[in-house]
Amino acid sequence: MLFFTQCFGAVLDLIHLRFQHYKAKRVFSAAGQLVCVVNPTHSLKYAPTRCAAVQASTEQGILPPCHHHEAVHDPQLVPCTCPLFSCPWEGHLEVVVSHLRQTHRINILQGAEIVFLATDMHLPAPTDWIIMHSCLGHQFLLVLRKQEKHEGHPQFFATMMLIGTPTQADNFTYRLELNRNQRRLKWEATPRSILECVDSVISDGDCLVLNTSLAQLFSDNGSLAIGIAISTSKVHSSEAEM
Amino acid sequence: MLFFTQCFGAVLDLIHLRFQHYKAKRVFSAAGQLVCVVNPTHSLKYAPTRCAAVQASTEQGILPPCHHHEAVHDPQLVPCTCPLFSCPWEGHLEVVVSHLRQTHRINILQGAEIVFLATDMHLPAPTDWIIMHSCLGHQFLLVLRKQEKHEGHPQFFATMMLIGTPTQADNFTYRLELNRNQRRLKWEATPRSILECVDSVISDGDCLVLNTSLAQLFSDNGSLAIGIAISTSKVHSSEAEM
Repeated sequence: MLFFTQCFGAVLDLIHLRFQHYKAKRVFSAAGQLVCVVNPTHSLKYAPTRCAAVQASTEQGILPPCHHHEAVHDPQLVPCTCPLFSCPWEGHLEVVVSHLRQTHRINILQGAEIVFLATDMHLPAPTDWIIMHSCLGHQFLLVLRKQEKHEGHPQFFATMMLIGTPTQADNFTYRLELNRNQRRLKWEATPRSILECVDSVISDGDCLVLNTSLAQLFSDNGSLAIGIAISTSKVHSSEAEM
Repeated sequence: MLFFTQCFGAVLDLIHLRFQHYKAKRVFSAAGQLVCVVNPTHSLKYAPTRCAAVQASTEQGILPPCHHHEAVHDPQLVPCTCPLFSCPWEGHLEVVVSHLRQTHRINILQGAEIVFLATDMHLPAPTDWIIMHSCLGHQFLLVLRKQEKHEGHPQFFATMMLIGTPTQADNFTYRLELNRNQRRLKWEATPRSILECVDSVISDGDCLVLNTSLAQLFSDNGSLAIGIAISTSKVHSSEAEM
């Protein structure tokens, strides 16, 4: 009996996923873009005290080191950059992507322009929607976070980080675009390096910020579609040609 | 002696205005756009109780009538739409523009693309920056408002309203653009009609919304430059051609 119940549950899950993907394809089929359905994860790492510490250090002009353990002994090693979990892992920058894929099961997508479809936007804060994006020979981490900076008033923060150094990040521009109901909102910026810590980017507010009311205006049946495009910066592209 | 002091004050004011205009021209000279320096006005009309009433009626799906007096007897007459003052004036829609210019001294600018340079962004909420914009044979009201929806956390709200009916407003699209420090934020939407009341548009959050941190990132020396462009909507432009 239990076996049949589980089978029925699995079939229902499959139908639900298929429906979400169909819905996303229907919305974006005209653009011919790759649509990625991203399910939410309730952040286990985030706590108000941690955020306050990040904000305090940012206000003093100190870059928060984003370390989840006591000290990094080898300066070439970086801590785990997963925004979801406190993870004791540390390793070289080149192997961060494989660590995020294998240990934290973060999906990776290919393509210059993709659509990130975040589902279940109604879930309570703190919640994160995360994917990696492989493009122009580099990997980027896209984070959409629902967080309450002011109690009882959740906001959505979206940013793109390069899994690389700040110098490498300066070579790129990313664009996030929301488009629905004759309204369009576009955010363009230089991605920050993953070494700068996603928590500090969000507490600085240097990202796409949406109030709940705006998020609802752009959502379709509880899902928010964000068009993502990455390009090389004009200033640096001439240098790259040299 | 008093005469000389007043003269000196007037000269200082002129130098200050000239400096602001020069600064704005320097920033936007490359684009060849008309720059309009807009000084803030501390809103005398806005009160939390009024806003709560607007929000309550909006949540119930009732369009707030925006009346500042007891009743409008002639249905063709509209109340004064000035967002700054409670004004007992009422008149036909065609004469709203001349009332706003003459009684409330709101400037009007010509041109398809202009730059709205709001000065003194640090002033406490509630504060409004307002101009009228004449374009494509119609007049629009641009409102930038600093308001505290959550106590101690002021936000900036920018919207464009057509001085006309909702049906006329559907024929246009407006774009607000912020661009500074390798960051760009664009908001595109159909303007709302002035008959729908700017207070309700802002309490709905159906406009460009900026946190203080984002506003600071886009500001230059306390002034925020917003690029404004108005165009006819694609859907309706074909109808206009017929």
